[in-house]
Amino acid sequence: MTQFNANQNPAQTPAHERTHAADQANSHEHSLVTNLTVNAAVQSLLSRLKADGDFEDSQIKLDAESLEHWGKDWTKHFAPAPSAIVFPRTTEQVQALVKLANEFNIVLTPSGGRTGLSAGAVASNGEIVVSLDKMNKIGKFYPADRMVEIEAGVITEQLQQFAEDKGLYYPVDFASAGSSQIGGNIGTNAGGIKVIRYGLTRQWVMGLTVVTGKGDILHLNRGMIKNATGYDLRHLFIGSEGTLGLVTHAQIKLERLPQDLTVMVMGMDEFDHVMNVLAAFQAQIDLTAFEFFDEVAVDKLMAAGHVQEPFEARTKYYALLEFEAPYEPIMDKAMAIFEACMENGWVVDGVMSQSIAQATELWKLREYISETISVFTPYKNDVSVLISYVPDFINDIEAVVSENYPDFEICWFGHIGDGNLHLNILKPESLSKDEFFEKCQTVNDLIFAIVQQYGGSVSAEHGVGMTKKPYLNYTRSDTEIAYMRELKKVFDPNGIMNRGKIFDV
Amino acid sequence: MTQFNANQNPAQTPAHERTHAADQANSHEHSLVTNLTVNAAVQSLLSRLKADGDFEDSQIKLDAESLEHWGKDWTKHFAPAPSAIVFPRTTEQVQALVKLANEFNIVLTPSGGRTGLSAGAVASNGEIVVSLDKMNKIGKFYPADRMVEIEAGVITEQLQQFAEDKGLYYPVDFASAGSSQIGGNIGTNAGGIKVIRYGLTRQWVMGLTVVTGKGDILHLNRGMIKNATGYDLRHLFIGSEGTLGLVTHAQIKLERLPQDLTVMVMGMDEFDHVMNVLAAFQAQIDLTAFEFFDEVAVDKLMAAGHVQEPFEARTKYYALLEFEAPYEPIMDKAMAIFEACMENGWVVDGVMSQSIAQATELWKLREYISETISVFTPYKNDVSVLISYVPDFINDIEAVVSENYPDFEICWFGHIGDGNLHLNILKPESLSKDEFFEKCQTVNDLIFAIVQQYGGSVSAEHGVGMTKKPYLNYTRSDTEIAYMRELKKVFDPNGIMNRGKIFDV
Repeated sequence: MTQFNANQNPAQTPAHERTHAADQANSHEHSLVTNLTVNAAVQSLLSRLKADGDFEDSQIKLDAESLEHWGKDWTKHFAPAPSAIVFPRTTEQVQALVKLANEFNIVLTPSGGRTGLSAGAVASNGEIVVSLDKMNKIGKFYPADRMVEIEAGVITEQLQQFAEDKGLYYPVDFASAGSSQIGGNIGTNAGGIKVIRYGLTRQWVMGLTVVTGKGDILHLNRGMIKNATGYDLRHLFIGSEGTLGLVTHAQIKLERLPQDLTVMVMGMDEFDHVMNVLAAFQAQIDLTAFEFFDEVAVDKLMAAGHVQEPFEARTKYYALLEFEAPYEPIMDKAMAIFEACMENGWVVDGVMSQSIAQATELWKLREYISETISVFTPYKNDVSVLISYVPDFINDIEAVVSENYPDFEICWFGHIGDGNLHLNILKPESLSKDEFFEKCQTVNDLIFAIVQQYGGSVSAEHGVGMTKKPYLNYTRSDTEIAYMRELKKVFDPNGIMNRGKIFDV
Repeated sequence: MTQFNANQNPAQTPAHERTHAADQANSHEHSLVTNLTVNAAVQSLLSRLKADGDFEDSQIKLDAESLEHWGKDWTKHFAPAPSAIVFPRTTEQVQALVKLANEFNIVLTPSGGRTGLSAGAVASNGEIVVSLDKMNKIGKFYPADRMVEIEAGVITEQLQQFAEDKGLYYPVDFASAGSSQIGGNIGTNAGGIKVIRYGLTRQWVMGLTVVTGKGDILHLNRGMIKNATGYDLRHLFIGSEGTLGLVTHAQIKLERLPQDLTVMVMGMDEFDHVMNVLAAFQAQIDLTAFEFFDEVAVDKLMAAGHVQEPFEARTKYYALLEFEAPYEPIMDKAMAIFEACMENGWVVDGVMSQSIAQATELWKLREYISETISVFTPYKNDVSVLISYVPDFINDIEAVVSENYPDFEICWFGHIGDGNLHLNILKPESLSKDEFFEKCQTVNDLIFAIVQQYGGSVSAEHGVGMTKKPYLNYTRSDTEIAYMRELKKVFDPNGIMNRGKIFDV
């Protein structure tokens, strides 16, 4: 059994006393005393894990490097400070852990691929991190249902590959698919670049096995397409960011492989024209993607030199669209729509892929943006509004930012077909990182006020976690949030599941 | 103001004292006393509706004919006995009503098109029926979002027609679409004949306005495609059969119109071959329907004489499939798959529509079944299992029924592509209706035991209401049901919303 050292992580603070970031100003002295208490509780819990849950030594990590590694996600705002990392292998082990966490009042932080951008999986407060890394097996495949049973720690790309091996397709795809785990995707109802055609993670989850915060194992919906027998608890767990319980298994629907994907990139000089082009294509062709980026993005891409300039002349806006074209008439139809868009003066220039290689090359225009602008220390926001409101919404945000911060450059890109925009404010060279982020925090209130005015979402696909928690009421009413708190109590009366995420309990 | 007569409906029983069917054995004398109490409460409530909720006289009905008409749905098992029917015109009127219902402890039964088959909208216990008949307006249309705002009393066909007028499509379709209301569809997460391609009602609901059982108005998700800001309460309300609150408005997504729908009907002699044909087509073609029926169904259809025999020789099983074929190569592909199915010996005979008229004619083979077999007083069940289990499941049910009731004839049809089967047991001429239904009640336990063994659902798309309530635990575990009860308490602490449906509170 691993040896536990009560002083191993003196920076940690007792989870049950620390739910607000503001609390972190507590006196150091007080912390040391309560740390010892918490460490004693954690120590007792971990000892009991072996007896109650059949945990082996190798399933518990306490070294500083592991605490650092598994204690954080892709956000950098919160310092990781978990008490321990545990690696269950079965749903029953998770259940044993949850029961002990209730007994000892220790907060559990569910942890997948830790690619989150809202600190939903960050353990900064003495929590025990529950890593699903050892529950990464793909189970039974049901060909007639085009469905597969998986453990929640399966990596997105692993599932995509499995599907492809079966001649099928798992259509939820995004930049972090090589690291993110399905359990995490379920926790935030992950979206990505194919939502316009295939929907969000929610649409592909046919069943879930969960351990609730009370320690009950529930098998939700068990893979059925149609099941009208009361409340669909599965959908309540999807998007709940591990605050109601822990997902251990899922039944995932697969789709037929897309055939002959074709990509078009078009340049436009007015934003309304982007919307016209979306409408023109969508009326006749099933788009598998409709992505958008602006000339600032293309400026940076060209300066970095990794991607080819799409057209001779730069335009203000660009749209990348993708569709299946297994039959010649579809290509003809796409060309006809494109020509009409040109004739209407909406599109300045355009290009269509003639091969998979060309399609891949065109996708780079969209896919490389995030990495390329990262050198400008962008302040990122992930917002959404009704598609109909996007043009006015973008105008209003640009007006507010340029009025208040004329030296800030904005780079827009995103999933216009879903009303989901990634707003990136680039750091001016003149400002230090700290000065810049401080200013951005005040920009936030202006931006989210506009989001609220349009009835939009302060987090379209990244979840709330800790970073969007202060802004939750810009999207959800106080009454709704009060109901959410009550729902959490039903599944997790002691508040041990990912406490401090989404809202404070 | 309408005059209330305390003795108008002496058969009614007090809602707050009557949650179990077994309770109906209460003494007549006791009933009369409490009826007077309840009637006094109802009378006070209705009087207050005018002051608190601006209700007009015409929005309240108390005559015997209205109580009979709005008190029941398409099920015939429970005698309607509501106290009153009210017709709110706004969300605020619903809110006023819900607050009064809490104050006076009167149960509300939400009521849409009353086409339900599980008695979810039946008021048999002195409830006030809340009819959405006067909230049937279609509101704002958002072309870029392909979304429309509607009141919950809009009829399914009305929405389908609106979509078509906009060159779009509302794809949830079923036999009762001419009468059912969207609010009711949301309450049971209605499915139907196009689920294989377009999913259930859930997939098209982008936002909901609800009045909770506590009387709070919530605007859930407000039409966004992507919104990762905590628990998605919208999905909790979908399928909750009005037990958590009342849906008053919805934002509904529309789809592009299907193009050149083509229908094929094939005859098969083994059930496994039906499954092979499904797999063969699904691998290459996006099916918009895959329906199934057996030779008993065709026997009855031919005897009734409304539909043409599809092939020269009768086969044991039939599949009807539908797909879009706007391009010649799709027809070629479908023909190639069909020929391969013939060569493999799976398909005995087949026919493909060459026109819309022919497609409509072929659909009659499936659509006329329900009406045709109704003369045999069928005992209907609506069950589902994983698609992979369908062949064994059908075998097991047939074995159990034929062993225990050798004189019962079974007619199967359903949505095989969704694992959803409608099992119809036809009444032998020798049995009276009462004898037959009594025997069927005992068959139920045998059938639902098999459903449970396969991990299936006792109600695939009809909801639980009152008729499936005794069988809920064949599909949902006791622990799950306990959580459902707790969730109901969060939204409806006094149990005034559709009490006695899904489970007893």
